[in-house]
Amino acid sequence: MMAKDYVLGIDIGGTNTAFGIVDEQGNILSRGKIPTSKYSSFDDFVCALKEAVSEAMKADGLTIESLRAIGVGAPCVNYSTGEIVGAVDLPWSSPITLTTTLSHEFGIPAYADNDANAAALGEIRYGAGRGLKDVIVITLGTGVGSAIICDGNLLHGYRGLAGELGHIPVYYDSERECSCGRRGCLETYASARGVVATAAKIMTLSGRDSLLQDTPQLTTKTIAEAAAQGDEIALKVWEETGSVIGKACADFAAFSSPQAFIFFGGVAKAFPYFEKSMRKAFEDNLLWIYKDSDIRFLNTTLPEADAAILGAASVVK
Amino acid sequence: MMAKDYVLGIDIGGTNTAFGIVDEQGNILSRGKIPTSKYSSFDDFVCALKEAVSEAMKADGLTIESLRAIGVGAPCVNYSTGEIVGAVDLPWSSPITLTTTLSHEFGIPAYADNDANAAALGEIRYGAGRGLKDVIVITLGTGVGSAIICDGNLLHGYRGLAGELGHIPVYYDSERECSCGRRGCLETYASARGVVATAAKIMTLSGRDSLLQDTPQLTTKTIAEAAAQGDEIALKVWEETGSVIGKACADFAAFSSPQAFIFFGGVAKAFPYFEKSMRKAFEDNLLWIYKDSDIRFLNTTLPEADAAILGAASVVK
Repeated sequence: MMAKDYVLGIDIGGTNTAFGIVDEQGNILSRGKIPTSKYSSFDDFVCALKEAVSEAMKADGLTIESLRAIGVGAPCVNYSTGEIVGAVDLPWSSPITLTTTLSHEFGIPAYADNDANAAALGEIRYGAGRGLKDVIVITLGTGVGSAIICDGNLLHGYRGLAGELGHIPVYYDSERECSCGRRGCLETYASARGVVATAAKIMTLSGRDSLLQDTPQLTTKTIAEAAAQGDEIALKVWEETGSVIGKACADFAAFSSPQAFIFFGGVAKAFPYFEKSMRKAFEDNLLWIYKDSDIRFLNTTLPEADAAILGAASVVK
Repeated sequence: MMAKDYVLGIDIGGTNTAFGIVDEQGNILSRGKIPTSKYSSFDDFVCALKEAVSEAMKADGLTIESLRAIGVGAPCVNYSTGEIVGAVDLPWSSPITLTTTLSHEFGIPAYADNDANAAALGEIRYGAGRGLKDVIVITLGTGVGSAIICDGNLLHGYRGLAGELGHIPVYYDSERECSCGRRGCLETYASARGVVATAAKIMTLSGRDSLLQDTPQLTTKTIAEAAAQGDEIALKVWEETGSVIGKACADFAAFSSPQAFIFFGGVAKAFPYFEKSMRKAFEDNLLWIYKDSDIRFLNTTLPEADAAILGAASVVK
C-alpha cells in the first residue's frame, strides 16, 4: 500500500484557483491552476480540479493515492461548517459545500479556512514564524487584515470574526475616513491608500523637492522606489507609517502576548523602510511587562507564488 | 470502589486560602479556609491544607477518596509549569512547586492558573457566561484586569501575559497617569481610583449641589449609593465611566469577536448605573460586522464567597 504522505493545498480566488502538492517539510512537489470563473457549477469546478490535480501529479511522478488530506483557503469560509457563504467574487450560489464536496470527490478529509487565516497558519508552519506559538500576522495591502495565533491556535471567535485589527482606531480624532465608515482606523494609515494619503500630506506640508513630485502616480511601489534612492520625503512617509503601525502593535501585544508580529502583503514590501520607526514606536508605547519578551517584527519569508498554497495546506489539522 | 466525583477548588490569597469541594453542577458541598501567612514553608502549608480539607469533608459526610482532581487559583502562576514565581504577597520563596506538590500530597492530578484567569473560567463554566465559548471577562477593582476566552480556550499567550486590557489606552492625550507609568489606560478611568477621579473632576466642573459633597470619603461604594438616591452628579460619574468602558470594549471586540463581556469586582457592583451608557458607547463605536452578533454585557452571577473557589475548580481540564 502506498504511503499517504502529501497534502493538497488549494487556494480558491475569484479569477484562478491554484493548487500544490505539499510534503511535510513544506516543499511544493507539483502544482497547477484552473480558471475559477469558467465553471458555472461548483460540482463541475471540483471535477475539473480533480482532473487537473491528477494530471499535474502524474506529470511529476506522483499518484493521487499519495494524498492524505486537503486544505483549502478561500474567501468567506465558515471554518466550522466548511462552507462558503456570501463570497461575491465567486461564481457559485451560497452556501458552497466546500469541504464535504471535496472530501467526497477525493475520498480524503478536507479542511477549509479564510484565505487570510490560511496565510497566517502558513507563516507559522513553513514561514517566518516557524515554531512560534504566539504570533500576530498583519496583512498590509488594499486593506489591513490580520490573523491572531495564540497558544498555537488560530483565533476564530464568535461567527469567525476575530482579528479585525485593521479596524481598531489609532487616532480617535483623525480626519481620515475608513472604508468601514468610521475614522482613524489603522487601515487608514497602513493600507496602500493610507500610505499614499500620508505621502500627499507630507508633500503638501513640506514644500521640499522630492522624486515623488515627478512620479506620474503615487503608489506604495513608487514611494518605496523613491525611498531606495534616498528621497527624504519618501523616507519620511515610511517613517510615519512605521510609527503608526508600531504604536498600534503595542496595544495589540496587551491582548494576546505575541512572540512576533509578521507582516505580508504589498505594502510590506517596503518593510526595510518602516521597520526602524515601527520598532521605536512599539518600544515607546509598550506596557513594561512585555519589555523582556523580546517581541520580534518579521517580514514574510514565503515566496509570493507559494504562500497561498502553503497556507491552504496548513489548514489541515 | 468509591466514585471520584468531586473537584477540590483552592484559592490561595496572601492572607487566607479558601477551599471548597465542587460537584459537576457547581455546587460547593463543603468548604473551609486556613491562614496562608501562618506557614513559613510551603510543605507545611500543604500538609495543613490536606488536614483541613479532610476534616471539612468528613464533617459534611464526604471522604477525601471522592476527589478526582485539584484546581488552584493563585497569584503569579505559570500555568504551563504549575509553579508560582515572584508572588510578593505569599510567604514562600520562588519557585513554589504548586501543582507537583499538591498532586503528590493528595495523589490526584492538580492544575493551576492565575486567580484572574480562574475567575474567568468560573464565570463561563458556572456563572453568567455558562455555555458561551467566546467571552471577555473584565475585573473592575483596585486595578482593571481581564481574561479572554476565545473558541472555548482561555488565552495565555507568550509567558502567560495575554489579556492586559486594563492597560490599553482609551485616550492617548489623557492627563491621567496610570500605575503602569503611561497615560490614559482604561484602568485610569474604570478602576476604583479612576471612578473617584472622574467624580472629583465632575464635582469641580459642575459646581452643583451633590450628596457627594457631604460624603466623608469618596469611594465607588458611596458614589453608587448617591446614584441610588438619584444624585445627578453621581449618576453623571457612572454615565461617563460607562462611556469609556463601552468605547474600549468596541475595540476589544475587533480582537477576539466575543459573544459577551462579563464584569466583576468592586466597581462592577455599580453595573446598573453604568450599563446604559456603556452599551450606547459600545454600539456607537463598534465595527459594523459585529452589529448582528448581539454582543451581551453581563454582570457576574456568582456569589462573591463562591466565585474564587468555583473559578479554581474550573481550572481542572
